[in-house]
Amino acid sequence: MTKKQILLNAFNMNSVGHINHGLWAHPRDRSVEYNTIDYWTSLARTLERGLFDGIFIADILGVYDVYQSSVNLTLKESIQLPVNDPLLLVSAMAAVTRNLGFGITINANAEPPHTFARRISTLDHLTRGRIGWNIVTGYLDSAARAVGQDGLSAHDTRYDRAEDYLEVLYKLWEGSWDDDAVRADRAARVYADPAKVRPVRHEGPFYRVDGYHLSEPSIQRTPVLYQAGTSGRGRRFAARHAECVFVSATDKAAARAIARALREEAVAAGRRPDDIKIFVGISIIPGRSDREAQDKRLEYLAYASPEAGLAHFSASTGIDFSRYGLDDPIEYGTSNAIQSATELAQKKRWTKRNLLDELALGGRYPLVTGTPDAIAAELESWIDEGEIDGFNLARTVTPECFEDFVDLVVPVLQERGRYKTAYGGSSLRNRLFDAGDRLPENHPGAGFRCLTQAHSRG
Amino acid sequence: MTKKQILLNAFNMNSVGHINHGLWAHPRDRSVEYNTIDYWTSLARTLERGLFDGIFIADILGVYDVYQSSVNLTLKESIQLPVNDPLLLVSAMAAVTRNLGFGITINANAEPPHTFARRISTLDHLTRGRIGWNIVTGYLDSAARAVGQDGLSAHDTRYDRAEDYLEVLYKLWEGSWDDDAVRADRAARVYADPAKVRPVRHEGPFYRVDGYHLSEPSIQRTPVLYQAGTSGRGRRFAARHAECVFVSATDKAAARAIARALREEAVAAGRRPDDIKIFVGISIIPGRSDREAQDKRLEYLAYASPEAGLAHFSASTGIDFSRYGLDDPIEYGTSNAIQSATELAQKKRWTKRNLLDELALGGRYPLVTGTPDAIAAELESWIDEGEIDGFNLARTVTPECFEDFVDLVVPVLQERGRYKTAYGGSSLRNRLFDAGDRLPENHPGAGFRCLTQAHSRG
Repeated sequence: MTKKQILLNAFNMNSVGHINHGLWAHPRDRSVEYNTIDYWTSLARTLERGLFDGIFIADILGVYDVYQSSVNLTLKESIQLPVNDPLLLVSAMAAVTRNLGFGITINANAEPPHTFARRISTLDHLTRGRIGWNIVTGYLDSAARAVGQDGLSAHDTRYDRAEDYLEVLYKLWEGSWDDDAVRADRAARVYADPAKVRPVRHEGPFYRVDGYHLSEPSIQRTPVLYQAGTSGRGRRFAARHAECVFVSATDKAAARAIARALREEAVAAGRRPDDIKIFVGISIIPGRSDREAQDKRLEYLAYASPEAGLAHFSASTGIDFSRYGLDDPIEYGTSNAIQSATELAQKKRWTKRNLLDELALGGRYPLVTGTPDAIAAELESWIDEGEIDGFNLARTVTPECFEDFVDLVVPVLQERGRYKTAYGGSSLRNRLFDAGDRLPENHPGAGFRCLTQAHSRG
Repeated sequence: MTKKQILLNAFNMNSVGHINHGLWAHPRDRSVEYNTIDYWTSLARTLERGLFDGIFIADILGVYDVYQSSVNLTLKESIQLPVNDPLLLVSAMAAVTRNLGFGITINANAEPPHTFARRISTLDHLTRGRIGWNIVTGYLDSAARAVGQDGLSAHDTRYDRAEDYLEVLYKLWEGSWDDDAVRADRAARVYADPAKVRPVRHEGPFYRVDGYHLSEPSIQRTPVLYQAGTSGRGRRFAARHAECVFVSATDKAAARAIARALREEAVAAGRRPDDIKIFVGISIIPGRSDREAQDKRLEYLAYASPEAGLAHFSASTGIDFSRYGLDDPIEYGTSNAIQSATELAQKKRWTKRNLLDELALGGRYPLVTGTPDAIAAELESWIDEGEIDGFNLARTVTPECFEDFVDLVVPVLQERGRYKTAYGGSSLRNRLFDAGDRLPENHPGAGFRCLTQAHSRG
């Protein structure tokens, strides 16, 4: 039997600091060049050389102001501030690659669905079917205030709103144009057939739309849908809509628990367990020998900022850790944090001292240091014991961390029969699921395909 | 004395049909490839070879449904439908060019100012200061309905809203970060200095913002501001904010009248007459001989769709021309059209017959056919008699129309001392105005620079 293949995304952000904070100060780190095109096109070429499935780009619309009730450390260590728009990087990276996918994080409350739908369709055209969307609903109060709201709306309301948003999007992406609407027939002078294009009319609890989708059908139509929610409501949302779920787990047992819960909930929603690919966030430091790897880890650690890691975690949990002594027990019962619910469940006894130590390198993700063989074995066991499908590789010192992974670890994974030796498939979705370019029939989005199409398929 | 130099933008849209309708059916026309990256990167290279100042990309968020009260012809002839997002093309084109500017049309009501400001800053970073924004407020009822509004808001209200929107943007772009806020000092571990970054707080009649600009300062900060309004209120808005104004004029006298009115109004707003560069839309068909040019015009005309031109004009004017006989006089007094006010003033006596003839090639813009010398002379006289600064070149059969212009007309303009022989300047603004990368001090946006900067300049 073929061994389960490992899927891989590079995890990144259009910013200096991302997960492994402080490493921007490392002399070989290039993340301060995040605002140049070459930084991204070079990275895209490296990832495609390593047959990565995608680059997954995080985003936030607010700032981290919980730690010390201020943005001081956030600015000094560039903890995801400044942060530029991720969507605008795609066409440059797509121009220098053919297969690399793009999983872009975009807040579902940031703009009206009609214009958002067009942005995604535009990129699905330009990339020839390589676009994924990581659906987030926002967890930062500062982001809500920045766009003129009084503050963050209640968690469940955000998901209800996202459900309505997605329904509009499915109607636009799947239903407004038939597959054969565009004829581009020069002789007959018919670009699109008016009988096969129709306006979307939607009156939902949050959104109202009356109009045509402005884009003709792209290869995937609906982008590959990513999600990262691990709260009860977030998991229900993911089980219904997500095709890829990005989870944070500090050990394999935790990953397995999340994976099983997600797949069970997907089945309850009428989908198959394998309709969801599960990715775990991880940091990797490989070396040609174990000694080289450990030396590299210590060298990186010398530039890491544990305090910046703590400040980031403060924003994620809503707990200002600056108010605690090094060995005080930390209360988390009143935290309103969403993203970290899983972690909270895993860490019953926190002190600032052990958090500083754990967050220094790896951030909230496991850190694996070692030879390519040791790393490959560890990744395999995450896949098998953790019952997951792949990894979002957080960057350390960039781009050397991705170059190291491609040069050292990928060949070993290939030798072990765990990693593709060439790209296949006609689109990001097709490469991930080996089952067509479009949403599968059991996905809720497929239900919004228009009747004339359903008939013609019948 | 040096002759006044001619500025040039290629006028385009992320769509099949743009201005010269029907030409998508021409066997050499490649506009049906608008949804591929290569179409745009090839064009960008051609334009940079021809030292174009910029590519100006139009956009709409609605559909043309006035003619025959339907979108039938709109879809058949692809009259700006489908239309993909223009902003997402930029990074791919920027990756293959160094000097070409990007003037992108974006509706000021389409998304909240906070996220929009970041999109523009992101592109100003990635392009190294080559971004322009063509500010539109929307004139299509169908666009307003598509984003959930009951219909288009009153014209003056749209401009009042745009004023408030711009004020937020100026605060974010000019005021949130000081010039020297980013130190990127690895040794001192200071990426940005917290003392030089501050949140924007805005409580306007339409927009409320409380937050930091998420992007660090880019080369231009505020993008080069384009505008195309020619109504009284639109002209007042342009005279106050715009650095480049795109006007539609069918003859030089009309161009001169608009140019003078705009410059007078700019002076009344505390700016200099030359602080506004005025571009006229034009279509050009050059040939090595006059015979070759005229033959090319007739060949193009054979594929043109005058009726599609009329349908487009119906949407612009709000008049359904399908309801008129060929020689009926056409009433325009009740038209609610905004964009076409100037044209309305120029055309006292319309019939469908003469509109079909005029709109067949050139659309609403003048069409110049001839030898490179004749075309150069005509463009010069538009600049001198029309008192304008440059042209937005509409495409005919693409990309050959731009290749022809670059190969045939540009060298002649250069010989006549009317066109640059190399790019200069450090940013789009600097190339256009030869006066720095940033908004000039007499521009209203400059007033939102923060006090600490003003002091440090003193």
